[in-house]
Amino acid sequence: MNEFELVKEYFRPLTMGREEAGGLLDDAAVFSVPEDMDLVVSSDTLNSGTHFLDGELPQNVAHKALRVNLSDMAAMGATPVAYQMNLAFAKQPDEAWVKAFSEALMEDNERYNVFCSGGDTTVSEGSLLISITIFGYVPKGHAVKRNGAEDGDLLVLTGPIGRAAVGVKSLLGIIELDDPSPFLAVCHKPEPRVALSPAIAKHAKAAVDISDGFIADVSHLCEASGCAVDIELKDIPFTEETAALIENGVVRLEKLLTGGDDYEVAMAVAPNDLDAITAEAKACGITLSVAGRFKTGEGLRVLGDDGEELEFESSGWTHF
Amino acid sequence: MNEFELVKEYFRPLTMGREEAGGLLDDAAVFSVPEDMDLVVSSDTLNSGTHFLDGELPQNVAHKALRVNLSDMAAMGATPVAYQMNLAFAKQPDEAWVKAFSEALMEDNERYNVFCSGGDTTVSEGSLLISITIFGYVPKGHAVKRNGAEDGDLLVLTGPIGRAAVGVKSLLGIIELDDPSPFLAVCHKPEPRVALSPAIAKHAKAAVDISDGFIADVSHLCEASGCAVDIELKDIPFTEETAALIENGVVRLEKLLTGGDDYEVAMAVAPNDLDAITAEAKACGITLSVAGRFKTGEGLRVLGDDGEELEFESSGWTHF
Repeated sequence: MNEFELVKEYFRPLTMGREEAGGLLDDAAVFSVPEDMDLVVSSDTLNSGTHFLDGELPQNVAHKALRVNLSDMAAMGATPVAYQMNLAFAKQPDEAWVKAFSEALMEDNERYNVFCSGGDTTVSEGSLLISITIFGYVPKGHAVKRNGAEDGDLLVLTGPIGRAAVGVKSLLGIIELDDPSPFLAVCHKPEPRVALSPAIAKHAKAAVDISDGFIADVSHLCEASGCAVDIELKDIPFTEETAALIENGVVRLEKLLTGGDDYEVAMAVAPNDLDAITAEAKACGITLSVAGRFKTGEGLRVLGDDGEELEFESSGWTHF
Repeated sequence: MNEFELVKEYFRPLTMGREEAGGLLDDAAVFSVPEDMDLVVSSDTLNSGTHFLDGELPQNVAHKALRVNLSDMAAMGATPVAYQMNLAFAKQPDEAWVKAFSEALMEDNERYNVFCSGGDTTVSEGSLLISITIFGYVPKGHAVKRNGAEDGDLLVLTGPIGRAAVGVKSLLGIIELDDPSPFLAVCHKPEPRVALSPAIAKHAKAAVDISDGFIADVSHLCEASGCAVDIELKDIPFTEETAALIENGVVRLEKLLTGGDDYEVAMAVAPNDLDAITAEAKACGITLSVAGRFKTGEGLRVLGDDGEELEFESSGWTHF
């Protein structure tokens, strides 16, 4: 099966018949952006051995590759529309692998109402790489940046922290769990909060998604906004399963707060807007948590139950 | 130099201070697409060992990576605006390499009036990979597809064919040339025909850029349009230097017609529009050639000086 056959058989269906993609037959896709919308664009590359294990199931790779990009749209308050996918295979791709990969993408296309608008496939000398560039629309002037947080705003989270970090430890065999499934689910199929995008565009003053790590990403938001944030440890949301692992000393709190890949959204919300966004989140089945408060100054502080500031060795993930 | 420092020092300047890119501080870039324009999106990945030699100069890698994408914009009649760049380094990147690479991109940003709107950097286990997704604007409804060629249209080319194929042979040491420089220039710094984009949008009924090979790409255009094309060998434009190499038996004609990477645009133009597009091209310093004529039927035929059809072993490049 050569490159053209592969595209025709497995990637063309991912365009979902949308005219914009032209059946992947043209040099480019063409979009008519609605007049009342801004275009939001983001990219994320996943590579084998870094973002997923070598030999990971193709469906897990597909779900993660698309969803981390969808998460960036949520953080901007944008509703995703389409994506370009650039695949670099480590060798002549295995057809069964490509089939399972494309079926998983198709599933997510339907779930999140997006389509593949183009891309390319190459064979590299190294490991499998998937680079996705995603597009979304946000009402004109309402894209949510990182730089809008102000003194008095609340730090609001769309869900619990640390499950992906536990999942990775389990995948790597560093810890053994009776039931790793709720943690692995977050690693393989994170839940991007795109259903909340319209509410984020309406109510959040600044936002970021938790990809590099809770501490690192919220710190970036503070830096961009030129303000500080105080977070009370007791207000950081963990699932019961995660809390039990901390309690039992199976995982260290620091690793959960600095681990990445949660793909929840952290926002700055004015206190007056909290009720409105909480109600809209509830309508999407999302429970928001208030984890801290922004203030003048700089830096992020996590205050333990004794009121003392916690110290961290590193704030999050970097590639080098 | 870690990832964040690298982005700040070498990639942030590539945003050219454009507000859309938000200083690369946000999860995504935000564009306000003009109301009278459609958005055109395309991607191309280059990897070391396939699209350029291992150890190639960083400035050559940068020019080629951006320009092959600009060329896709030209083929759609779109004026490029910005690009997302996803870099996968084979190892911790060398700062001098990144500096030279980013300076070359900066040069092309200015030359082609584009900016980098975002992207990411990762470290893979394999070879260097550069995946660019480019955006451009075209007047609403005027994007040029591959499927518009009709019986009687002329096959028009924006420049000579085969120089890149000669350059690659020279780079690989397959042939030895007294002066390889005009051929290497096309390999390292192809000239995307974006200056002609507005004229292409106005006058071309179908277009494709010559990336996989003249025969392969024009065949794709025929297939998409559901028509055939007859090309007379004597009408295919070669530079004097290339013609001399064919004449002297240094390179085989077939290799030039099926070699890729010329990045000229092949168009279907109605005979009535030829004068107008020729004049607009001349104003941009581009000399157009009429190399053939589309007709009903299917397939591409190249007719030799004796009127006999030439036969080719393969039509162009595929990755696998």
